[in-house]
Amino acid sequence: MVRRGALTVVSPSGERLNFGDGAGEPIVARLTDKAAVWALLLDPDLRTGELFTDGRLVMEQGTIYDFLSLVLDNDNQENPSPIVQAFDRLRIATQLWRQRNDLGRSRRNVAHHYDLGDAFYALFLDPDWQYSCAYFEYPGQSLADAQLAKKRHIAAKLLLEPSHRVLDIGCGWGGLALYLSGVAGVAEVLGVTLSEEQIARANARALAARLTDRVKFALTDYRAVEGRFDRVVSVGMFEHVGLGNYDAFFQTCRERLADDAVMLLHTIGCSDEPSVTNPWITRYIFPGGHLPSLSDILKSVERAGLIVSDIEVLRLHYADTLRAWREAFMARRAEAAAMFDERFCRMWEYYLAMSETAFRYEQVVVFQLQLVRRQDSVPLIRDYIAASELDLRAREAAIVIGDL
Amino acid sequence: MVRRGALTVVSPSGERLNFGDGAGEPIVARLTDKAAVWALLLDPDLRTGELFTDGRLVMEQGTIYDFLSLVLDNDNQENPSPIVQAFDRLRIATQLWRQRNDLGRSRRNVAHHYDLGDAFYALFLDPDWQYSCAYFEYPGQSLADAQLAKKRHIAAKLLLEPSHRVLDIGCGWGGLALYLSGVAGVAEVLGVTLSEEQIARANARALAARLTDRVKFALTDYRAVEGRFDRVVSVGMFEHVGLGNYDAFFQTCRERLADDAVMLLHTIGCSDEPSVTNPWITRYIFPGGHLPSLSDILKSVERAGLIVSDIEVLRLHYADTLRAWREAFMARRAEAAAMFDERFCRMWEYYLAMSETAFRYEQVVVFQLQLVRRQDSVPLIRDYIAASELDLRAREAAIVIGDL
Repeated sequence: MVRRGALTVVSPSGERLNFGDGAGEPIVARLTDKAAVWALLLDPDLRTGELFTDGRLVMEQGTIYDFLSLVLDNDNQENPSPIVQAFDRLRIATQLWRQRNDLGRSRRNVAHHYDLGDAFYALFLDPDWQYSCAYFEYPGQSLADAQLAKKRHIAAKLLLEPSHRVLDIGCGWGGLALYLSGVAGVAEVLGVTLSEEQIARANARALAARLTDRVKFALTDYRAVEGRFDRVVSVGMFEHVGLGNYDAFFQTCRERLADDAVMLLHTIGCSDEPSVTNPWITRYIFPGGHLPSLSDILKSVERAGLIVSDIEVLRLHYADTLRAWREAFMARRAEAAAMFDERFCRMWEYYLAMSETAFRYEQVVVFQLQLVRRQDSVPLIRDYIAASELDLRAREAAIVIGDL
Repeated sequence: MVRRGALTVVSPSGERLNFGDGAGEPIVARLTDKAAVWALLLDPDLRTGELFTDGRLVMEQGTIYDFLSLVLDNDNQENPSPIVQAFDRLRIATQLWRQRNDLGRSRRNVAHHYDLGDAFYALFLDPDWQYSCAYFEYPGQSLADAQLAKKRHIAAKLLLEPSHRVLDIGCGWGGLALYLSGVAGVAEVLGVTLSEEQIARANARALAARLTDRVKFALTDYRAVEGRFDRVVSVGMFEHVGLGNYDAFFQTCRERLADDAVMLLHTIGCSDEPSVTNPWITRYIFPGGHLPSLSDILKSVERAGLIVSDIEVLRLHYADTLRAWREAFMARRAEAAAMFDERFCRMWEYYLAMSETAFRYEQVVVFQLQLVRRQDSVPLIRDYIAASELDLRAREAAIVIGDL
């Protein structure tokens, strides 16, 4: 499977097997036991992460990112082995069942990942706590700048007016909601999340920014929100909805949207058909999660009677975001180990590394879908986006950052 | 069904039935016989056009556009009658069969519409013979300007280089191919169409523009083209492919695309689910045609292993294009009647009017899909499109229009 590069795998008995053409930095990985060898060969999608987390796949030269990067860059995506194909088929069937995601299960799934402690996320996120794909306007832009550009880009696509009421589904630690209110200047934002840690910090930030009369955060499932909104935005939450609930998600969004409303959905997706979400990710990182294909999303959008007015496909932006997070995480790994343990740190390194390679070498991207109920709710051509970004940039400059 | 407006229907016996609230310009339609009344009530999607063409639905005040516009503007799309729903279900089943579109059938389907004679199309198209949706940069832009803007917009999304070989699938009368060569300056364009009248005129235009060494036109089915191209573009042809052939279409496109190639597909589509193509259109205007939903298109794009890098949704642009064509057509209706007959003119007036209302009041739009084989074949963000348009606009100014 590996033709390019210099990969050495050290077997449990100490044998050194060389793969590739020897070009580039040498990468050496050791497997500690025979069972690990079989696990890796039979079901690499699930087992590679488990073996690395358990310390049974040990990197002796290079990092786990280098290892995954080399394997995936060589990978012939079109001809997976029959065993991998069989696991894929099985997983398509079982993942649907595991993604039922009723209210109780959704809350547990969210707590599993997002309630790890603010101190932990502070180790590697940007100062505004944006835990989703940044928007790099040029190569080498800093993560903090690119996350600000992301909020600006989304605000521009929402065509905001000062009178607007905005619903933010999956508001995280509140950064986008505070931007929409503090910079874009809308009358009212309601941000909802199921994470208790996120809601506490979001509320504290609203208080510090003196925006509590215009920005509210609620520990509420989006399905429990009532009323209609001029704008609805959802960034990095749809990945948790689960394939079986897409119809219900868009039907609910439609009911929350005023007649001339605009919605912006920002979600990871893939262009594989059929789409299997990585089993290690759904077992250890995001239980109940599913990476949608664009056709799956649109089937449900169409059934809900919503109109797609624009789709931007952010390619490679998340790879660069994840690289920035991983570099920050590795620089402060000792602090993370003190909060949790070595095993947890290996799991997180694997999660960040593996996700980056998926965006860099596989067909995983971020979709920004703009949805409307009426065709005339957005302008005829897309030049309003750049114009609005220019305007928002000027407003950002006029605001003391400490205020948010 | 009609609550707003002032519609009067005159029955065969001379009875005048009034519908609506009486507001706005009065519209009066007369049905000449009892069978016409039943036909209209039972299957309006197919029969309205037939009755108007046959002179059995006669407009006494207002035009057929005014009539259709009033009915559709009032229409409650969410609750079609059970009879209309039954016809829809039946048609989904039978349309798939009628859209087999092998090479011989495709050629007959194309001849049916596109070989009506250049003199006829000259009556209402812009001077460059663009027979697809224009790109109106601002309300009230002239059709000729908006068609030029469309070619510029498509060229910008293709990221053209002077060395490029471009394939234009469904080249029409050659306007886009000549623009890509004469203005954008690519090395080679191959335009293919199945219309003998189109190919003759396209070749004559290439000769007049002295571009025959760089622009070739061929009377060839796209499935018979060989080799690989740096860029593939297809404008207003996909509507003829037929739902059952989408997989084959995108598989063929993928085989024609070089590794770092970019493809731009411009097609009418709808956001209905499930999608039924208007039965009158497929019987009288575009046999074998099908209006795709975006989810149907993307299912096949994903299966072909192509990556979507951008989707623009042109809403309402085709409504304004069709209005410009209908106004030009009606102004020169006598000339069309001299070429064909009154019945033909009524059919074309109905086709243009009905299509405009579909874009204005129903969920019919134009999709511009940009497709790639590799994620890094297009820049990170979309600002290159506006920059390239600016550059192309400058080149247009430097070229004497008569040269093309």
